[in-house]
Amino acid sequence: MREVFHQSLEDVQARLVEISELVTVAIDKATRAFGSSDVSLAEEVIDADLVIDQKTVELDELAIEILARQQPVARDLRIVVSALRVSASLERMGDIAEHIAQLTRMRFPERAVPKGLKSTFSKMGQLDVEAARLLTELLRTIDLTITDRIRDLDDKIDDLHVSVFEKVLSDSWEGEASATVDATLASRYHERFADHAVSIGKKMIYLATGDWASHGEAFEAAQAANA
Amino acid sequence: MREVFHQSLEDVQARLVEISELVTVAIDKATRAFGSSDVSLAEEVIDADLVIDQKTVELDELAIEILARQQPVARDLRIVVSALRVSASLERMGDIAEHIAQLTRMRFPERAVPKGLKSTFSKMGQLDVEAARLLTELLRTIDLTITDRIRDLDDKIDDLHVSVFEKVLSDSWEGEASATVDATLASRYHERFADHAVSIGKKMIYLATGDWASHGEAFEAAQAANA
Repeated sequence: MREVFHQSLEDVQARLVEISELVTVAIDKATRAFGSSDVSLAEEVIDADLVIDQKTVELDELAIEILARQQPVARDLRIVVSALRVSASLERMGDIAEHIAQLTRMRFPERAVPKGLKSTFSKMGQLDVEAARLLTELLRTIDLTITDRIRDLDDKIDDLHVSVFEKVLSDSWEGEASATVDATLASRYHERFADHAVSIGKKMIYLATGDWASHGEAFEAAQAANA
Repeated sequence: MREVFHQSLEDVQARLVEISELVTVAIDKATRAFGSSDVSLAEEVIDADLVIDQKTVELDELAIEILARQQPVARDLRIVVSALRVSASLERMGDIAEHIAQLTRMRFPERAVPKGLKSTFSKMGQLDVEAARLLTELLRTIDLTITDRIRDLDDKIDDLHVSVFEKVLSDSWEGEASATVDATLASRYHERFADHAVSIGKKMIYLATGDWASHGEAFEAAQAANA
């Protein structure tokens, strides 16, 4: 019985890793499509989001079945509850990749990236992809020091997000209203994507410590333990 | 033991209703503050979001404790899992009300509502408040026909969201880049707020039917049952 249970938990973890890998592919393709106005690549992302949604539904069903049949307690219970939460965030990250792809498709054959912001969005895209890769590694290894690296990436993305608004609101901005709308939405999507990665990191810290309320201290403790 | 358990479930429900009421107050104040550039009202919303966050954390802890101690199965298990999901959406709705309040504060003493869009945002705000009120009623009564009314409101908000972009992208739009940014972000926030209400409605349908995958059919079935 215990063996069956631990196989189930390993199955949950393997599925989270798999979904995180799909999200990484999605954000990689979406940000490249956005940068190069590649509408067929954008459509791949839009189609593939259905797969991510389906896989998160299946994972949730498995998690609920485990709760019902195996009645886990203590750390095992936390693993299953955390999996439900992580799956919701991954599903949302997939949605955001799809939104970036939709912006690309909506503007095609025009370029979706506003003039003067191509290199900024290129950097934001690369950082989002890197955050997704680290997230997959975090879910695979449960090495909490990775949450620190994800937070660093998120800080960099936040700075770029601020720089987009500075650019758009500066006197030198010559973009039309549509370029301003696109810059605003695209920047928000890129920024939110990384926020979800940070949020999953916090959930993994909860998993290791059992304490929702003191993420900050738990984080420091985890860092100290790994130092 | 069963009696203790059902008291716990009633406690969970009462807390969800309470948080939904706080979210209703938040979106009401935030949208009024946005419309009238009332920075002190905006600050009330920003401060009060900490309370919403704290109450969702406490609710989550209670739900996890119930899972650990009472080991619910079948419908009782679904209630607890749904509560965790609903709480995450309510927390997010509170964040969105806070974002609208932050836009108001950021522009103060200037007006945050872009010229020419005052009545549109006033309508969106009223519809969001109405959606939040219906959501509270749904959580209190578990009357699934309310999900239908929430979806209708969401459709109206989506139409207004589209109309904001039509306005901003029309030849008659004379707003500066900052007005375009504000219109884009504010419209997105108003639209997302109602999306979460719809999403909670779907979770309540799951609760009644146990089927994540076929929300659509479940919804029709629930409607037929209530007809």
